[in-house]
Amino acid sequence: MPAPMKVYLAGPEVFLPNGREVIEAKQALTRRYGFEPNVWLGEGEPPPAEPFAFGLYISAANEAVMRDSDLIIANLTPFRGISADIGTAYELGFMCAMGKPAFGYTNDPRGYVERLTGDFYAGKVEADAEGVLRGTDGLMVEDHGMVDNLMVDGGIDRNGGVIVRRRVEPARILDDLGALEECLGIARDRLPG
Amino acid sequence: MPAPMKVYLAGPEVFLPNGREVIEAKQALTRRYGFEPNVWLGEGEPPPAEPFAFGLYISAANEAVMRDSDLIIANLTPFRGISADIGTAYELGFMCAMGKPAFGYTNDPRGYVERLTGDFYAGKVEADAEGVLRGTDGLMVEDHGMVDNLMVDGGIDRNGGVIVRRRVEPARILDDLGALEECLGIARDRLPG
Repeated sequence: MPAPMKVYLAGPEVFLPNGREVIEAKQALTRRYGFEPNVWLGEGEPPPAEPFAFGLYISAANEAVMRDSDLIIANLTPFRGISADIGTAYELGFMCAMGKPAFGYTNDPRGYVERLTGDFYAGKVEADAEGVLRGTDGLMVEDHGMVDNLMVDGGIDRNGGVIVRRRVEPARILDDLGALEECLGIARDRLPG
Repeated sequence: MPAPMKVYLAGPEVFLPNGREVIEAKQALTRRYGFEPNVWLGEGEPPPAEPFAFGLYISAANEAVMRDSDLIIANLTPFRGISADIGTAYELGFMCAMGKPAFGYTNDPRGYVERLTGDFYAGKVEADAEGVLRGTDGLMVEDHGMVDNLMVDGGIDRNGGVIVRRRVEPARILDDLGALEECLGIARDRLPG
């Protein structure tokens, strides 16, 4: 039996009040689908205490884990705004550059244009003289029928994945794992081993 | 004389009402500092008209240009929220995975924690029982003394770059090029050629 593929589980769970439990639940679910959730085991040395140095340490650790992972599953649920967590977007690009399989999921079933138009511009968008839809600040309202920015959806599509969308109870938007589970099932079916 | 290094100019300028002019101004400035702004020259075939397919086409084009570029300079000015444009974050991760030099700039001189605390939580953050600062929604308020998420700052730091911060007139926050110019000067000084 081959070793299980290693998954980089990207997402903003570390910021949740119940972050540790949610991360452990994600890892357990990942194992149940035959994958190994990849984690940083440390280097023996204690991490630096100074905040900037500590941030660099975590960033380097995450990149090391990504290089050691076979695929990424990214939680793209909007975080502190209308788009996915920006650290997760960076990590998705990082894995896509290496050509590794990439999957995503979101607990907001709406597309980017719906969140932008409805949540950010409160419905106040208008076509300009050339027919381009713009918000009250003049910025273009792009609509590619995608979950988020085209680089996010495009990277996942090109690396063999899908983005699973779910509607969940509002109180569970950042920790419901139903969409992750569906995503793991699809990844298991699509990938070798 | 060696060929100039090719720069991938990442940022949300395409969404601006004056997007074309701003992009051309960025390219002209980049040339003035001895670099070649790298752009997509097309494949001869017309791009697909269907929105999702068109989005994938642009995404693939951007990735092809990134693979052909020697470094990235990313406009990290907050876009539609408290963080950088999510497409730009993806692109930064993409270039950092390839180990290419990465630089950034922002026209908001504040750090992430100041935007998160001031703009997003309107000052309403409190330490929990363990001394961890949290917003009204219970999410952790992280402070690494960084411009944005630690993956963004960490990737740039590790790939030899800096993030230039500027304060500009509010009306020019998305198109002032002073910080880009400073960034180009630093990149020219640090890179060979």
